[in-house]
Amino acid sequence: MKPLRIGLIGYGFMGRAHSNAFRKVGNFFDLQHTPVLQAVCARDAAKAKAFAAKWGYQSIETDWRKLIARDDIDVIDIASPNNTHAEIAIAAAKAGKMILCEKPLAMNGAQGEKMVEVIAKAKVPNMVWYNYRRIPAVTLAKQLIDEGRLGRIFHYRAKFLQDWTISPELPQGGAGLWRLDVKVAGSGVTGDLLAHCIDTALWLNGSIDSVTAMTETFIKERKHTLTGKVQKVGIDDASAFLARFSNGSLATFESTRYARGHKALYTFEINGEHGSLAWDLHDLHRIQYFEHADEGRVRGWRNIHVTDGDQPYMKNWWVPGLAIGYEHSFVHQVADFIQGIESGKPAGPTFKDALATEYVTDAVLKSARTHKWEKVKKAR
Amino acid sequence: MKPLRIGLIGYGFMGRAHSNAFRKVGNFFDLQHTPVLQAVCARDAAKAKAFAAKWGYQSIETDWRKLIARDDIDVIDIASPNNTHAEIAIAAAKAGKMILCEKPLAMNGAQGEKMVEVIAKAKVPNMVWYNYRRIPAVTLAKQLIDEGRLGRIFHYRAKFLQDWTISPELPQGGAGLWRLDVKVAGSGVTGDLLAHCIDTALWLNGSIDSVTAMTETFIKERKHTLTGKVQKVGIDDASAFLARFSNGSLATFESTRYARGHKALYTFEINGEHGSLAWDLHDLHRIQYFEHADEGRVRGWRNIHVTDGDQPYMKNWWVPGLAIGYEHSFVHQVADFIQGIESGKPAGPTFKDALATEYVTDAVLKSARTHKWEKVKKAR
Amino acid sequence: MKPLRIGLIGYGFMGRAHSNAFRKVGNFFDLQHTPVLQAVCARDAAKAKAFAAKWGYQSIETDWRKLIARDDIDVIDIASPNNTHAEIAIAAAKAGKMILCEKPLAMNGAQGEKMVEVIAKAKVPNMVWYNYRRIPAVTLAKQLIDEGRLGRIFHYRAKFLQDWTISPELPQGGAGLWRLDVKVAGSGVTGDLLAHCIDTALWLNGSIDSVTAMTETFIKERKHTLTGKVQKVGIDDASAFLARFSNGSLATFESTRYARGHKALYTFEINGEHGSLAWDLHDLHRIQYFEHADEGRVRGWRNIHVTDGDQPYMKNWWVPGLAIGYEHSFVHQVADFIQGIESGKPAGPTFKDALATEYVTDAVLKSARTHKWEKVKKAR
Amino acid sequence: MKPLRIGLIGYGFMGRAHSNAFRKVGNFFDLQHTPVLQAVCARDAAKAKAFAAKWGYQSIETDWRKLIARDDIDVIDIASPNNTHAEIAIAAAKAGKMILCEKPLAMNGAQGEKMVEVIAKAKVPNMVWYNYRRIPAVTLAKQLIDEGRLGRIFHYRAKFLQDWTISPELPQGGAGLWRLDVKVAGSGVTGDLLAHCIDTALWLNGSIDSVTAMTETFIKERKHTLTGKVQKVGIDDASAFLARFSNGSLATFESTRYARGHKALYTFEINGEHGSLAWDLHDLHRIQYFEHADEGRVRGWRNIHVTDGDQPYMKNWWVPGLAIGYEHSFVHQVADFIQGIESGKPAGPTFKDALATEYVTDAVLKSARTHKWEKVKKAR
Repeated sequence: MKPLRIGLIGYGFMGRAHSNAFRKVGNFFDLQHTPVLQAVCARDAAKAKAFAAKWGYQSIETDWRKLIARDDIDVIDIASPNNTHAEIAIAAAKAGKMILCEKPLAMNGAQGEKMVEVIAKAKVPNMVWYNYRRIPAVTLAKQLIDEGRLGRIFHYRAKFLQDWTISPELPQGGAGLWRLDVKVAGSGVTGDLLAHCIDTALWLNGSIDSVTAMTETFIKERKHTLTGKVQKVGIDDASAFLARFSNGSLATFESTRYARGHKALYTFEINGEHGSLAWDLHDLHRIQYFEHADEGRVRGWRNIHVTDGDQPYMKNWWVPGLAIGYEHSFVHQVADFIQGIESGKPAGPTFKDALATEYVTDAVLKSARTHKWEKVKKAR
Repeated sequence: MKPLRIGLIGYGFMGRAHSNAFRKVGNFFDLQHTPVLQAVCARDAAKAKAFAAKWGYQSIETDWRKLIARDDIDVIDIASPNNTHAEIAIAAAKAGKMILCEKPLAMNGAQGEKMVEVIAKAKVPNMVWYNYRRIPAVTLAKQLIDEGRLGRIFHYRAKFLQDWTISPELPQGGAGLWRLDVKVAGSGVTGDLLAHCIDTALWLNGSIDSVTAMTETFIKERKHTLTGKVQKVGIDDASAFLARFSNGSLATFESTRYARGHKALYTFEINGEHGSLAWDLHDLHRIQYFEHADEGRVRGWRNIHVTDGDQPYMKNWWVPGLAIGYEHSFVHQVADFIQGIESGKPAGPTFKDALATEYVTDAVLKSARTHKWEKVKKAR
Repeated sequence: MKPLRIGLIGYGFMGRAHSNAFRKVGNFFDLQHTPVLQAVCARDAAKAKAFAAKWGYQSIETDWRKLIARDDIDVIDIASPNNTHAEIAIAAAKAGKMILCEKPLAMNGAQGEKMVEVIAKAKVPNMVWYNYRRIPAVTLAKQLIDEGRLGRIFHYRAKFLQDWTISPELPQGGAGLWRLDVKVAGSGVTGDLLAHCIDTALWLNGSIDSVTAMTETFIKERKHTLTGKVQKVGIDDASAFLARFSNGSLATFESTRYARGHKALYTFEINGEHGSLAWDLHDLHRIQYFEHADEGRVRGWRNIHVTDGDQPYMKNWWVPGLAIGYEHSFVHQVADFIQGIESGKPAGPTFKDALATEYVTDAVLKSARTHKWEKVKKAR
Repeated sequence: MKPLRIGLIGYGFMGRAHSNAFRKVGNFFDLQHTPVLQAVCARDAAKAKAFAAKWGYQSIETDWRKLIARDDIDVIDIASPNNTHAEIAIAAAKAGKMILCEKPLAMNGAQGEKMVEVIAKAKVPNMVWYNYRRIPAVTLAKQLIDEGRLGRIFHYRAKFLQDWTISPELPQGGAGLWRLDVKVAGSGVTGDLLAHCIDTALWLNGSIDSVTAMTETFIKERKHTLTGKVQKVGIDDASAFLARFSNGSLATFESTRYARGHKALYTFEINGEHGSLAWDLHDLHRIQYFEHADEGRVRGWRNIHVTDGDQPYMKNWWVPGLAIGYEHSFVHQVADFIQGIESGKPAGPTFKDALATEYVTDAVLKSARTHKWEKVKKAR
């Protein structure tokens, strides 16, 4: 078993999700490499130490540059806020490290392009944590679409609905709330939530040609945790767009943090000539599948409990009927990343794949400003 | 178009349901006979008149014997309380009338046997209003089972759950509440609700050999509407039994009026070697179907919206996707009754069919008293 | 009981739905007026006669002008294709008839304005058959919103998904298929399906300020039933738009006849500060309601089976738990129309109300052509 | 952090589930003790080594007596087949080890009594892995019931439905299939599946007084993996019973491995005067709750997504909306076991608690033989 020494940057929600995946992957997947929790990096040494103790990291750093400089680190895992991704990733690539980066890739497409350029030169394995591709039900959808079971695609629709920022008392900025601070997050729900929807959509249904969008900031001012002052809110609270895919299908996308009653309801549906698929994150272990070829009298949406050994990833877990959860998508992603290294066939989404999502979110945000349809920049 | 002159006895909930069916059947089904609302009979002339005015009955009677004696009545429709069924049906049969009778057929099997005997001699068309057989989804289940699509049957389970008698303030007896008066109803949920479950089960899965049961009366005394006194409650508030069918399958049945949150949740499920079916009355336009032959990865319960023209009865109604409701089962039953007359192939359940249900409810009530497994009397 | 003598124009799907409503309303609702099926009008006398026989119309006409000229008709009910509405309605108004008109009101807003103008002068009772307002669950949504239970509204979304025109073999034009013929229908799914979504949305959430839309015709040519030739398809097969309501909320709307697996899935959801509501036509007897004030541990979407006597219209039907269906919305609309006449408070949607929907569909179709955001004309 | 040195016996499905829980608990729960994977024991040294390598156990044993004799083991975790539990547990208790034991506790009540007796004398911390108590939704149900929110209980019903043994080609006995071998398993679905249903029921609804049951073995003979011969099947394939609880409520229980379409559908429902709760394992992160006190118009089953920080165990995991799965119930059980040690308030179910379940399964199996109602032995 060869070690894959991880240097994690960030100790928040995503730092936990990644660490858990690194710890578990070897127990459930047969791989030649095993992640080793070598070091965690955070500016606050006390917090870094506490995190290291909790998760079993062998050392800490308080400066990510030092982490990157270490010889005993194979993989830099970027789990820090959006505005730090580019600088860290570029430095890590130049240092020859493999890179795992939280989504979204960058603050915008231009920044992402630079990252992709450096990475391409460095030729280091790289991946972005668009984890929802690895929910077994979503991977199954990918299989079925790629097999042509849906036929010509007519429609795609996706939503990501939350309700956790409705209160005007919620401040912006700082730990846990940097997603509301536009300088740190880059955008609001567009980069945070729609980016997930777009990544999955591009993967399942190909490229998007053009979009028309609207965004809204319902609460205009919030107290800033770091400054203590009431400041203008710069992020989009809600974002919706219409799109045309290159394959001729039409799409609607929407995300918001003001949909009362929905905690993290990411849902997509795709309609083709021969069948349809629908999925949602609140019941992530299920997928709805409609097959038009079924006999008319007994034709109906099949409610599939994706927990069988012949369904993606599931032979590695428990027995049919016993569901896995959110965190397992990260384990799958680590497993696929390692298999990609071992097989020489890199697992996606790579930085280059993730750049395509940046181009879409750029077009969405631009359209929301121009009130026009905007072309999506094509990936080279 | 030949008239089928109806003489209705009773003006309550079921009188309305039947009258609606008589009025509508000709608009939606192509038949040679059309029901004519000739007369309604009720002891209270004012109520009979009001009902006649509301529904278009051409005359009234206050004595059911006079109704039966009339030459201008072809069909006697018994929609009065359970304890009146036998006497009326026997008289009507002797008078050569066709008979439609509300369920349950009788107060018990012995009484039912006499009814069947007289009917058999009179050779008059007859049917019992076990209307749930004619919900399109339930009829579809019958088709699929008869085609052998489920294979060998292992399990059957049915429940009928309500919650409308939980309050001890609810009185027993009198209009609208005779179902709580054992002298009028014969039993509680066993005859009222389980009878429906049993009728469907016998139709779908064949005869029942033996049962073990328990019943309970949660509220022991209630004021009686007619006497004004607090009296012992004689009915069963809840009733459950285990059964073995002649085909070797095992079953559980349950009904109650104390299942908080359920209004009229009749539900059944049947599991066979090759597939399963599940249905419930709260979403009566749907059936769940599992076909094991489907490919493993995309195998799941098919949620079938039974509103297509190739599904039972539905070509007579609207367009796919537009649901019908509870009342339509009665329309279907009238249509089938008339088609039975016209074709010479009587539609079920006939009185004889319904007697089989009496035998089961008798065995259930007996077992609840003896605390033993009881054999179910076999229909001859 | 005063008669309300109906003259029906059209004998298709909607002719049946209206006739059924006229026949039933008196059995279930206490009104001073009762519809009388006086005459049905169709160009083909044989078809008119057959329809009259089936439904009990007392006479027929083959020229709608003659029908309007008759003294024994109180109400003209327009159930003929879209391109006939304006001419008939204007003539009927001038003749002093009350008017019921199928939706959409007109071929476009300009035509609708003329109709509204004439109607206003004639001062005749009038209503458009946007029947979905009268599904009890939808009416309940209206009550709750009007009571302020949702608070400030952030989002509205609606879809109407069908799949019945996917086959390129399906012809356009003629009986049953005029909805595919742009000259007769005016537009495709925008006027046919989105119009329903828009009517409900305006009713529940107020006026729409502006929209950006896209439409698509997936099958470019179809054989025309009447000409026998393959002709260009002029309708929109799919239509989607983003909208901003006057109350500041954001919306997405979509309709298509290419969503494989959906028969008539009209669905809407509305999210407010304090709660949310969601409904769909496939399970029309249910509404989902989320109330944020519920205690956190036991907070969840309430799945409400709208069949209780305290819910809109339901005390007039059966008992709790027993669902009604699609057709009942028309019965409710007739009941409300009659009560509007009797009370002097006209029931909506009137022609004027329905004109607002025309303005939105006009803006949607325009935006789809201009690829720009378009303002919606304000109702005066 | 104090170590809690684990000695695991068994390397099958449950060995994995337990090991995963031991490894994870410290990452997500704040405890003073942390499990240390000291040794795994299996008769086959190669398999033990492979398992140890996969999960990080520091050593192996091939004789459980040696494991128990080791000084460096604090906890013996019994994850071997049912017929080994008693001997190992008794020896471990005598050696002063803490004991975790897979369910069911024993082959029958008599055997279980001996285990409880020895354990009581040894005064060692002990627990049985009835893990479903620790699904957050189930724990929430317990909270609500204990708070009296359901009021007087009328009904309890539970099922555990699977379909994995329908094929007669499936052999019995040996690795992975010992559950079909009555000598090893003790019984079929009664001890394997119903035991779960009963444990939860006793926890939620108190003790059971009496039962009437039926069992069936659908496939009478199967090849035995170890002997290579076709042998009589001794287990029950299906088992159902009616029960009366001490609190006066009525219950139905059923389990089978012949319910086509259900993988591991454990479901329970409880109906009380003021409310009801329903849960199932296929959507384990949800619970359905009905509160009768809600206003009538908007009363409905609340579909609760149990992923919020104020719901049991969930503050330790991710953020609202992100589900955990089956395996987490074991993590919770380890956390509670450790907290029980630390607080001096032992977490259940202890061996003594689990003995009550043995008494019920004994009565069920006896009733299935005697065809009579049987009293359930009372726990002392």
